[in-house]
Amino acid sequence: MENWIKSQGRNDDLVLSSRIRLARNLNKIPFPHKMDEEGGKKLIKDVENAFYTSSHTEDKFKTIRLWENGFIDNEVFFDKHLISKNLLDNTSKAAFIVDENETVSIMINEEDHIRIQGITSGLDLEEVQDLCGKIDNLLEEKLDYAFDENLGYLTTCPTNIGTGLRASVMIHLPSLTITNKMNGVLNAVTQVGMTVRGLYGEGSKARGNIYQVSNQITLGLSEEEIISNLKAVVSQIINEENLSRENLIRKYKYETEDRIYRALGILKSAVLLNPDECLKLLSDVRLGVEMGIIKDVSKVVLNNLLVDTQNAVIQQLYDKKLSSKERDLSRAKLIRERLVEK
Amino acid sequence: MENWIKSQGRNDDLVLSSRIRLARNLNKIPFPHKMDEEGGKKLIKDVENAFYTSSHTEDKFKTIRLWENGFIDNEVFFDKHLISKNLLDNTSKAAFIVDENETVSIMINEEDHIRIQGITSGLDLEEVQDLCGKIDNLLEEKLDYAFDENLGYLTTCPTNIGTGLRASVMIHLPSLTITNKMNGVLNAVTQVGMTVRGLYGEGSKARGNIYQVSNQITLGLSEEEIISNLKAVVSQIINEENLSRENLIRKYKYETEDRIYRALGILKSAVLLNPDECLKLLSDVRLGVEMGIIKDVSKVVLNNLLVDTQNAVIQQLYDKKLSSKERDLSRAKLIRERLVEK
Repeated sequence: MENWIKSQGRNDDLVLSSRIRLARNLNKIPFPHKMDEEGGKKLIKDVENAFYTSSHTEDKFKTIRLWENGFIDNEVFFDKHLISKNLLDNTSKAAFIVDENETVSIMINEEDHIRIQGITSGLDLEEVQDLCGKIDNLLEEKLDYAFDENLGYLTTCPTNIGTGLRASVMIHLPSLTITNKMNGVLNAVTQVGMTVRGLYGEGSKARGNIYQVSNQITLGLSEEEIISNLKAVVSQIINEENLSRENLIRKYKYETEDRIYRALGILKSAVLLNPDECLKLLSDVRLGVEMGIIKDVSKVVLNNLLVDTQNAVIQQLYDKKLSSKERDLSRAKLIRERLVEK
Repeated sequence: MENWIKSQGRNDDLVLSSRIRLARNLNKIPFPHKMDEEGGKKLIKDVENAFYTSSHTEDKFKTIRLWENGFIDNEVFFDKHLISKNLLDNTSKAAFIVDENETVSIMINEEDHIRIQGITSGLDLEEVQDLCGKIDNLLEEKLDYAFDENLGYLTTCPTNIGTGLRASVMIHLPSLTITNKMNGVLNAVTQVGMTVRGLYGEGSKARGNIYQVSNQITLGLSEEEIISNLKAVVSQIINEENLSRENLIRKYKYETEDRIYRALGILKSAVLLNPDECLKLLSDVRLGVEMGIIKDVSKVVLNNLLVDTQNAVIQQLYDKKLSSKERDLSRAKLIRERLVEK
């Protein structure tokens, strides 16, 4: 698997990453929100004992205990999509196991006891599912999963019962957004049991025209069916976005180029940049790269900026707590350095 | 005298140019709007005969007859501030005599029979007045000026009677404009018999934050008094603008730098630029140069762009009639070339 942030990929690929997560719980142990810190930390030990059973996992993975970290460092893991908001909320008894390449994370004491997550670059759900399944099997050898013959895996929230699987694909859809077609896409997607969320999951806005399309239903379908349905929906959305882009360039060639080049010009020269404007401009530049209009900016630089310009990462990079205005200043400086001196 | 467009001047000088014009009419000849083409062309001959009397004037000056030119070429003379809207309106019987350096123009059959105009760079009204006076004397030797012992020079419009002199200074006042203080300045200036106009004189908007301050009163004051009053008012306005800039950079350092650098970034990268936005951005960049924030753009480049991005000049440079969108495209291209390849 490839770390999506560090992946160059194909320039015309609209998919940033493919993610699988499996929700698992242990039998006869209270769900995390009912568990005290002592119980939570014992569970972490149990999961570690089940996981670190070979030199392979011992060498390539490590456990990060959130309560041992500062707030900003934990926020950064969230900004990198390695952990969820729920895990952050349980800092005092939460941990995650992560590989050195930051493509796999096993969250412990999230909403569920265990959440196995894999992310790779581009559209490749099968590879991620394969790896997550292996980790799932490894853990299941030693841990007593809460499983019902009829219902499948039992989870804290009923929406996850069954496979406990959520597959999601992060896609860049600027043209459908600009031309106000995203509402139509959202409605269509909902009708086939899928859901569309923003850059940072449930409840987050689709800032920077980046959307996460994922399955809503986890029960009554096999893992393979969920993944193949999602892939079909994503393919259709990609087609619509590409058609919309062709239309845009045919009808508004100069206006589109203007928008794209100005965005790059502003990113290279601004002194203050707030997060919303930053994501909007990065999206315009990404569109330029994807359409072959901008040739001297790499996707890797854009992926890194997408993460590194988040509030927490900015503060971690400059190693101090910054005011909103200082963050806008540091964000602009970081972007100028990355884009001008590239 | 120095052509204001080609002048580098001091970077911190807010004055672009100083202009003097003298309105003169001939005795017993109808005013231009009452004159037919034949009469108008005869008058042009008479003025030429009076003017071209030495090898000096014959070598360095030439007559341009508007009816011999295309519309765009005549518009370009207007955009360069060499002729007035009124002269353009009389194309079929209007001409002007101009020096090779384009600092002096003698308009014939404008609102008045003769308008002697001199423009130089920076704040130097005396030098211009001196030269205009010499040309006035030269013409007066051969021509019978309409002059009344009590009223002075007689003119078509009563507001010009007396000295027939209008002195005006073109100043860049972005900070007073941004901070909404121009209305106060306008009121104060009007009370001391001065008037403030836009970049292209009477009735034109103050686009690009460039204003022309000039005397309103031509009667009851000597030429010297008019000029020294105007200089006093202009000095005061310059002081206020400079105070306003100091205040701006003290209170809004980063916001001001952001505005300035973004303007340069957009000018260097835009694909489409309409005239209003173009002047606004050029003003922001000029402010940056004047404040020492931008160091690698010269005033000469900015002065040239101020003129060359006008609709007519754009079309002359590309040698064809362009639609509004084609002009926006050509304007942006021209600016990119001048600023990026400088």
